[in-house]
Amino acid sequence: MEWRQDTVRLAPKSRGFHLVTDEVLGQGPRIDDLRVGLLHLFIQHTSASLTINENAAPAVRGDMERHFNEMVPENQPHYQHTVEGPDDMPAHIKASMLDTSLSVPIQDGQLAFGTWQGIYLNEHRDHGGARSVVVTIRGETT
Amino acid sequence: MEWRQDTVRLAPKSRGFHLVTDEVLGQGPRIDDLRVGLLHLFIQHTSASLTINENAAPAVRGDMERHFNEMVPENQPHYQHTVEGPDDMPAHIKASMLDTSLSVPIQDGQLAFGTWQGIYLNEHRDHGGARSVVVTIRGETT
Amino acid sequence: MEWRQDTVRLAPKSRGFHLVTDEVLGQGPRIDDLRVGLLHLFIQHTSASLTINENAAPAVRGDMERHFNEMVPENQPHYQHTVEGPDDMPAHIKASMLDTSLSVPIQDGQLAFGTWQGIYLNEHRDHGGARSVVVTIRGETT
Repeated sequence: MEWRQDTVRLAPKSRGFHLVTDEVLGQGPRIDDLRVGLLHLFIQHTSASLTINENAAPAVRGDMERHFNEMVPENQPHYQHTVEGPDDMPAHIKASMLDTSLSVPIQDGQLAFGTWQGIYLNEHRDHGGARSVVVTIRGETT
Repeated sequence: MEWRQDTVRLAPKSRGFHLVTDEVLGQGPRIDDLRVGLLHLFIQHTSASLTINENAAPAVRGDMERHFNEMVPENQPHYQHTVEGPDDMPAHIKASMLDTSLSVPIQDGQLAFGTWQGIYLNEHRDHGGARSVVVTIRGETT
Repeated sequence: MEWRQDTVRLAPKSRGFHLVTDEVLGQGPRIDDLRVGLLHLFIQHTSASLTINENAAPAVRGDMERHFNEMVPENQPHYQHTVEGPDDMPAHIKASMLDTSLSVPIQDGQLAFGTWQGIYLNEHRDHGGARSVVVTIRGETT
């Protein structure tokens, strides 16, 4: 049993849903020598989030952004936390509807993803800047 | 400390929310000899999902399906990913609003569920077929 | 590698989103001697939930409550599970949109939170009473 932990920095992204599987795995601790284990990702922010979704069609990511904007519009009369701009409170709500952390099983040195799965960083602010993700891995080497 | 991992196959389900606690646990690795631990479930798909909710009244599951259909309707003008049918893009959105993975504590050989908790498979496609779930267990035997 | 597990009881809360970081950590097993690890929280209920969000402005918590009430209103004609009162079925839906469990990395004896992150208990019932949370910790001492 081993623990590996590192904090990776994701480059600034435009508002929307972004496929970051390679950007995260390329910077985090290695998993290729683990027979079995779990990868845990934790984003250290409350206005961006993580999720797992379709890794092929860019239109899926665009539709996600458009539909979350429909469910959580800006400038609602019931928002009282408006001091940080119209994109801020919707960003907090979306972050809780999606996920601050993800856990993915490791099998034979790889993430046990289905064919169409990838890791998304969801940037909910207009200008969110770089984002920090803590990568924690536990597993057994072969 | 032990790791146990297996991939279980859940039989095809109709679109909607289904209670699958027994179907998952009956096929996955044993937990009854673990004093303490965590069960992790990971669905290898992006148009079906997992959640924990009420394990008794079937109307709860029906209301979940009806309300998620209200929040994420088909055939919206802002959907661009329409090539796989009107139920596909809503399925991706629902999968991210709910969960791709679940973690449940193990206590004295059992899941530490409250009285009313059970595991749901949420089938968001009209004809989703069988679904694969990776079961990963870590724990300490007594 | 060590496992620590305990069930903590959170005092009854009014309907809404509540910052409970100190209430949970103050009652659960210690983490200050762990060099690396993961904290797992699991709420044993289906009408209250956990999430991580902004730890400073109370208006964020009020806006969360108001916006989830917009997305999941009471007394909808499509609700069939109405026997436990108008706040019950919305509570189940919100619990699945948010989270039954949370995982937070432990780094050098502390939760690896960003500056603005805290743990919320989301009470979705009008009179939910006390709530039980199973705290499970795995980690390596220094």
